Amino acid sequence: MAEPSLMLKEQDLPLLVDLYELAMAQAYWRSGMDGEAVFSLFFRKLPEHRNFILACGQQQVARVIESLRFTDENIRRLEALDRFEPGFLDWLRQWRFTGSIRALPEGTPVFPQEPLLEITAPVAQAQILESLVMNYVHLESTLASKAVRHVLAANGRPVVDFGMRRMHGLDSAWRGVRAYRVAGLAGTSNIQAGTDFGLPVKGTMAHSFVQACEDEMAAFRMYAELYPGTTLLVDTYDTRGAVRNIARWLRENPDVDIGGIRLDSGDLGEEARDCRQILDEAGLDHIRIMASGGLDEYQIDSLVAAGAPIDGFGVGTAIGVANDAPAIELAYKLTAYQGEPRMKKSTGKRSWPCPKQVFRQFDGSGRMQRDLIAEASEEGEGTPLLQPVMRDGHLVEGAIAPLEDQVDYARDAVAALPDQQKQLAPAAQAYPVNFSKSLEQKQAQTLERIAHLQEWNYRGQD
Amino acid sequence: MAEPSLMLKEQDLPLLVDLYELAMAQAYWRSGMDGEAVFSLFFRKLPEHRNFILACGQQQVARVIESLRFTDENIRRLEALDRFEPGFLDWLRQWRFTGSIRALPEGTPVFPQEPLLEITAPVAQAQILESLVMNYVHLESTLASKAVRHVLAANGRPVVDFGMRRMHGLDSAWRGVRAYRVAGLAGTSNIQAGTDFGLPVKGTMAHSFVQACEDEMAAFRMYAELYPGTTLLVDTYDTRGAVRNIARWLRENPDVDIGGIRLDSGDLGEEARDCRQILDEAGLDHIRIMASGGLDEYQIDSLVAAGAPIDGFGVGTAIGVANDAPAIELAYKLTAYQGEPRMKKSTGKRSWPCPKQVFRQFDGSGRMQRDLIAEASEEGEGTPLLQPVMRDGHLVEGAIAPLEDQVDYARDAVAALPDQQKQLAPAAQAYPVNFSKSLEQKQAQTLERIAHLQEWNYRGQD
Repeated sequence: MAEPSLMLKEQDLPLLVDLYELAMAQAYWRSGMDGEAVFSLFFRKLPEHRNFILACGQQQVARVIESLRFTDENIRRLEALDRFEPGFLDWLRQWRFTGSIRALPEGTPVFPQEPLLEITAPVAQAQILESLVMNYVHLESTLASKAVRHVLAANGRPVVDFGMRRMHGLDSAWRGVRAYRVAGLAGTSNIQAGTDFGLPVKGTMAHSFVQACEDEMAAFRMYAELYPGTTLLVDTYDTRGAVRNIARWLRENPDVDIGGIRLDSGDLGEEARDCRQILDEAGLDHIRIMASGGLDEYQIDSLVAAGAPIDGFGVGTAIGVANDAPAIELAYKLTAYQGEPRMKKSTGKRSWPCPKQVFRQFDGSGRMQRDLIAEASEEGEGTPLLQPVMRDGHLVEGAIAPLEDQVDYARDAVAALPDQQKQLAPAAQAYPVNFSKSLEQKQAQTLERIAHLQEWNYRGQD
Repeated sequence: MAEPSLMLKEQDLPLLVDLYELAMAQAYWRSGMDGEAVFSLFFRKLPEHRNFILACGQQQVARVIESLRFTDENIRRLEALDRFEPGFLDWLRQWRFTGSIRALPEGTPVFPQEPLLEITAPVAQAQILESLVMNYVHLESTLASKAVRHVLAANGRPVVDFGMRRMHGLDSAWRGVRAYRVAGLAGTSNIQAGTDFGLPVKGTMAHSFVQACEDEMAAFRMYAELYPGTTLLVDTYDTRGAVRNIARWLRENPDVDIGGIRLDSGDLGEEARDCRQILDEAGLDHIRIMASGGLDEYQIDSLVAAGAPIDGFGVGTAIGVANDAPAIELAYKLTAYQGEPRMKKSTGKRSWPCPKQVFRQFDGSGRMQRDLIAEASEEGEGTPLLQPVMRDGHLVEGAIAPLEDQVDYARDAVAALPDQQKQLAPAAQAYPVNFSKSLEQKQAQTLERIAHLQEWNYRGQD
């Protein structure tokens, strides 16, 4: 076996597919089943610690789908699996997505059973995309949904991403920062991702720097000279001692420009109060206090509620892996084939048939009141959320808003959530999501039709 | 802002770095601090639901480090940040890793405070690698540590990865499969990763295929014809009904070759027993039963303990995101500078100074008894675990074993764990890890020395 390359490449994406998708595609191809299918991406229930999911990636993934092509190298690998016929491999070689996609705008709060996106395409085409689409959207939605809770808890104070080191792999560490920006984070420590996705890049020093220098003050002096306005990390040895040193140093050297200090361990609220007092008594009330070190939204909320004099938060692991809800149970299900509703009724996993639209209804002050999930062909009251992103295999011009507009849209959409959904604790009442009468009828009719699909057995055996 | 590319590329890796690392590197460069530093990658405590971590990625990352070069595009981006001097950017342009790395073999069980790897290099070089090394090793170790618990629970039955759709991003979905192979999984649904990392690719059909076909039996017939020996998914409508249909069909058509059925919902133990009975009564005892659907190691353990007639398990989300412990608190800390021990004493985060070696001691039957963490220069009883991977910037020939040997090594290493560490429940007693006398002395001495590093303050103020 040749050593694989160091990273997955764009030309590998067509084979970042579960085998069963290509096995099904070949079966469709071989039996001439090329009817139009509708697949819906949704989740059945919220993770325990979420009152909403901030949907991200569902428009962006259309860019990936549009560019997807099977290369000769992809085809050679499939040949080697010895399961695919030459005719089907030729079909793959010609493959390009010719279908349509409707999706929620990036940064839309979404609830159980509501489609994040719907793909309409010949069934084999849509089937092949299953795992790639799910993986792509799942990452950004999972991370954005965690990050936005920190933004809400910080209540206006900036929250900065320090998560790269514990995010799951290189793609997560990169594309996660896009999701963080949509979710409202104020900065990131990650240079490549920050510059790619327009999030200010932040960061000053680690403990190792203080440790490597002659002593702590030598480290501070070196940084002050090199980076005017810098933030000094003060907890390497003894936090209060370090801050008293800084206070004395700045009193004796008024030209030195220090912008802030960072606390990274201990009781952050108590340390912040003591440090604030030392700084204020030295007339250094312009020096800001940043806190980091294992923070999550609950701790930020407590610190803010207790009035801790902290001006900004750096968060790593909690947002980096969405530690209390690292997965959303996203599903990608067939809801129609050749215009006919389809569903599954597996125990505990009954799905809703038909292409859908989500109508969001607001009160007079712009606050969300309820959602209605209807058939895509129905007219409903409220704002229809699913919008075309691709038509006939091509991106719809202007359908994906520039990233800065996604940020504004998400901020306003989150602001419009009911207070219960915005709080960190579980909402006492779920946000109301209803199904249209027509959709309920279609589900009942489809269930009835399904009852006949196993008749052969009961005729024969019982 | 130009639209970023669809994926992170290998040439972007040098900037997948936290800003503070380059800020520190510039400070080192500017002040001529180019002394040799030793950084150690370790964790302070086990995640709540782990009795050991299966260390993965710590040798592999040396391949990434060896090839790391700052391109002109990297340098242009850094220039645009307006924080770096031309001289330092020139230094980066020439940058290549010239240091040495010692690491645990891939697939080594590891415990708190034991280094997974140690990097020895001029301080700025080693500092720059911090976040990339952590991200790289964290992913594989996190996923392998979860996956190996499933292998232990399944007690010889094959466990297959179905996790791609919910893994965090594209790199995780790809490189995670490498970690799964080391951890002992028997297959993956993921074609690109399975073929890159030599894990057999598995998979048959989704519910959508059954739904799209005329009826369930039509779907089964199509698959039987196209894929002899295939596994049929039987829970789309009614599991027992489907299996009765299959039994009758196969009785009437003895030439049809079906290898197995897959259950994906409901009470898997009960359904497996009923299905086994239906199949056995029809003389189909060669048909295997696979189970999937939200499985984790605890459920597998219960099913195996209850004697459920399940021949193999497909696992998705649980291993895909390591859902009960999605992060390991890996730290990358300076332990020596210019031959002198270094440590930090931040509240709750006190570290151990000095370059280290881990000696693993076994009893007569090859079972692990205890580990000793000693200074790298000490002789100790037992097998020294940290082995050279890079010397003077070059990979040590043969240091990274072929993947198939890593699999064997990990299997044997896990088998040698004490029973308490192999069980799923928290071990009543932590695995014994001791520090050498010399290391304890060095920590005490270093603490004493550190006490003087803030003296300036106390002289001046108290």
